[in-house]
Amino acid sequence: MIQVQILCIGKTNEDWVKVGIEKYLKLLSKYVKIELKELPDVKNANKLNPEKLKAEEASMLQQYITEKALLVFLDEHGDTFNSVEWSKWLTKKSLDHSKWIFIIGGSYGIDAELLKKGSSVALSAMTFNHQMVRAILLEQLFRAMTIQAGTSYHH
Amino acid sequence: MIQVQILCIGKTNEDWVKVGIEKYLKLLSKYVKIELKELPDVKNANKLNPEKLKAEEASMLQQYITEKALLVFLDEHGDTFNSVEWSKWLTKKSLDHSKWIFIIGGSYGIDAELLKKGSSVALSAMTFNHQMVRAILLEQLFRAMTIQAGTSYHH
Repeated sequence: MIQVQILCIGKTNEDWVKVGIEKYLKLLSKYVKIELKELPDVKNANKLNPEKLKAEEASMLQQYITEKALLVFLDEHGDTFNSVEWSKWLTKKSLDHSKWIFIIGGSYGIDAELLKKGSSVALSAMTFNHQMVRAILLEQLFRAMTIQAGTSYHH
Repeated sequence: MIQVQILCIGKTNEDWVKVGIEKYLKLLSKYVKIELKELPDVKNANKLNPEKLKAEEASMLQQYITEKALLVFLDEHGDTFNSVEWSKWLTKKSLDHSKWIFIIGGSYGIDAELLKKGSSVALSAMTFNHQMVRAILLEQLFRAMTIQAGTSYHH
């Protein structure tokens, strides 16, 4: 079973989003071993300039990154796929990687140096609320799994 | 104040999505007069082929469309914008239209003939769950309003 880790910055403090996250984590657990890991906010984040903040977030994220894992950053400027292409892309990647790490950055996005270490995917050209995007990513992972499995979830 | 109507097919039966919808409807009510209207599912929808189903949904939606309104269909194949472009696009449209109607189709999308009557916008190339997309659209409308107003919600 593929091991999937989703790393994000800060707690999910919207209760309704939490319910959505739990729903899709449970649905996904049929297909993958999945964990959503909320890393703590950087201390005094609002006193740091965005570049410094992203660098501190990057060094925290770095600790969880293992060399053999597929590393995917959620980034507005990343590659775009439709849901079927995304499912195929993941299926192809699973041939070389038994662990997938998805990284959702903080409110200023992801450190440029860190971005070079993996693939970048855009769920949309639009900026999504970075709490909601956790549930959106999980739904899109679940959709990819069901497309691969040929169930009727995705028309 | 701009009047915004969001038309969608079927009840929001995910309670967590309902909470998100209520949150953003409330936030948006500072900027626009907004209503989300859930039209009933077509009867025996699962016995109809997708084209027939979309045609029936279209004739139901048609009753709410007024000639002078800005008509925007949420469609995966529609135009894509980033959040700032989307905000500007809406601002420009507001010069000619004091009423905006957004239409979220059913699970097979929107009837091709109906689509010709308005603009089509894609929130993403990916197919989103058509319950969640209601909250995602509202958050994106709220983001557009805050960009226009110059508040700090959108970085």
